[in-house]
Amino acid sequence: MGEFEYIDWIRNRTSNRDGVEIGPGDDCAALRVQPDRSLLITCDVIMDGRHFQLTEDGPRQVGRKAMAVNLSDIAAMAGTPIGAVVGVALPVGGGVSLREELYLGLRDRADAFDCPLVGGDTNAWDGPLVISVTVFGQASPRGAVTRSGARPGDWLFVTGPLGGSILGHHLDFMPRVREARQLDEFAPLHAMIDLSDGLAGDLGHLCRESGCGAVVMGDRVPITDAARSLARDDGRSPLDHALRDGEDFELLFAVEPEVGRRLLRDQPIKGVQLVHIGECVDQGIWIEQEHERSPLTGRGFEHDLG
Amino acid sequence: MGEFEYIDWIRNRTSNRDGVEIGPGDDCAALRVQPDRSLLITCDVIMDGRHFQLTEDGPRQVGRKAMAVNLSDIAAMAGTPIGAVVGVALPVGGGVSLREELYLGLRDRADAFDCPLVGGDTNAWDGPLVISVTVFGQASPRGAVTRSGARPGDWLFVTGPLGGSILGHHLDFMPRVREARQLDEFAPLHAMIDLSDGLAGDLGHLCRESGCGAVVMGDRVPITDAARSLARDDGRSPLDHALRDGEDFELLFAVEPEVGRRLLRDQPIKGVQLVHIGECVDQGIWIEQEHERSPLTGRGFEHDLG
Repeated sequence: MGEFEYIDWIRNRTSNRDGVEIGPGDDCAALRVQPDRSLLITCDVIMDGRHFQLTEDGPRQVGRKAMAVNLSDIAAMAGTPIGAVVGVALPVGGGVSLREELYLGLRDRADAFDCPLVGGDTNAWDGPLVISVTVFGQASPRGAVTRSGARPGDWLFVTGPLGGSILGHHLDFMPRVREARQLDEFAPLHAMIDLSDGLAGDLGHLCRESGCGAVVMGDRVPITDAARSLARDDGRSPLDHALRDGEDFELLFAVEPEVGRRLLRDQPIKGVQLVHIGECVDQGIWIEQEHERSPLTGRGFEHDLG
Repeated sequence: MGEFEYIDWIRNRTSNRDGVEIGPGDDCAALRVQPDRSLLITCDVIMDGRHFQLTEDGPRQVGRKAMAVNLSDIAAMAGTPIGAVVGVALPVGGGVSLREELYLGLRDRADAFDCPLVGGDTNAWDGPLVISVTVFGQASPRGAVTRSGARPGDWLFVTGPLGGSILGHHLDFMPRVREARQLDEFAPLHAMIDLSDGLAGDLGHLCRESGCGAVVMGDRVPITDAARSLARDDGRSPLDHALRDGEDFELLFAVEPEVGRRLLRDQPIKGVQLVHIGECVDQGIWIEQEHERSPLTGRGFEHDLG
């Protein structure tokens, strides 16, 4: 089975959608976009042995992750996904089931957010699996929520418990696309980021881009059971896991205190407990535990580019 | 040197551009798009050992190719590129120069068409280099030129000589973005495709999508010196190389005969000799040589997906 047969297989699974003028199979896909919204674009690459283990995790789950990590970036801007393309370096010998399962995993997460898969490029080789997904979206009527709008005094929130993602969550999460839109509709968000590098690292990004600092209340950080389970075995604290493991794919956002109070009072996001974990300050990244502030060290997870 | 330092290096090389609201460094890039045009999207992946040889070709040239093959797809729809993102699986041990040279090669071709590089994702691993580029563009006021609008009787043209690309052209070509737009402004194009799989193969795609056939005049197909050079060594004919080598990245397009006559008379594209190679018929893909028609067999280059 060759490239063109695979394209046909995909085209047979692609329904006509509003907004999609040209789907898979031509030189480009074509979409209609809403005229008054910014176009958002994000691209993430995941590779066998680094972001997943193909033989353990299976191609369906890998496809889900490849799409979900990108949708999470659209969520971080409070955007709405409108389409995706996928570039794949496919190991030879995986047979038909590898690429079909991969595609079905990609579609699984994309379909959950009405995001059409409009094109891509798949080539086989004798290397391991690499998947590069690009998702485009449109910003909300308020505009894209960046990392750079937090101000001293803002309250900081997260959308769920953190840490221990490696035990399974990193493969099998639902990106917070709907939650982000609901938050953006509820009130202006000053800044937002999705937690991929760990709270310590991503809070650092947000503060750096915003030109402010932050203090995290250690006893308020919500911690997953997975983080507690890892902590029992490795001697690190559950909080350390929550701060530094990465791939939580929850949202971290900053709002003015008045909005923060309303969020705590109303808890407007169904199925999600918004947690007020700290606030922005003039400078420095701090963690407060038992009334003592110490520097929140550690950048979280950073890829070494060699 | 880590991921974030590399992102800073890129941001320092990224100028503010019209239309780019958010460039590299946030969760998504954001672009303003023209309200009355379709958004075009194309994605191509190239891999070390399949589409290039990193140690022979060098990262600058590889970067050029990775961007150019995508711009060629935008050209094939007569579109204008408006932005690009790049996903990279980077071999460890390449050092700083590998990723910087790669980036400069990508920028080289993108800058030639005022296409801002607005984001991406680079991760190191112990596998070979993989580059997945996604380019977005906007369709012309006439709309995107697809593969599917050719009609029996249309004249078929190519924008330059074919074959022997492996001797160097496949790495170092300028995508026909400007030429495509000039053609689209000159007259309506019924169908167009960029020649990546070889004339025999890509003409097959165009005819299949258009629901028609075609006859190619063998003695009119323009042939490169590189194809003649290969033919001297391997016993295949120069025409066979021109029909089947692939990666020419010239344009093949169909227009009504009256437009074809005007194109031949005016030759309106500076620096390009438009060549009338045949015409569309009701069915079958044929080649005519010495007044004899025979089936134009061979699908050109197709990737085997294993």
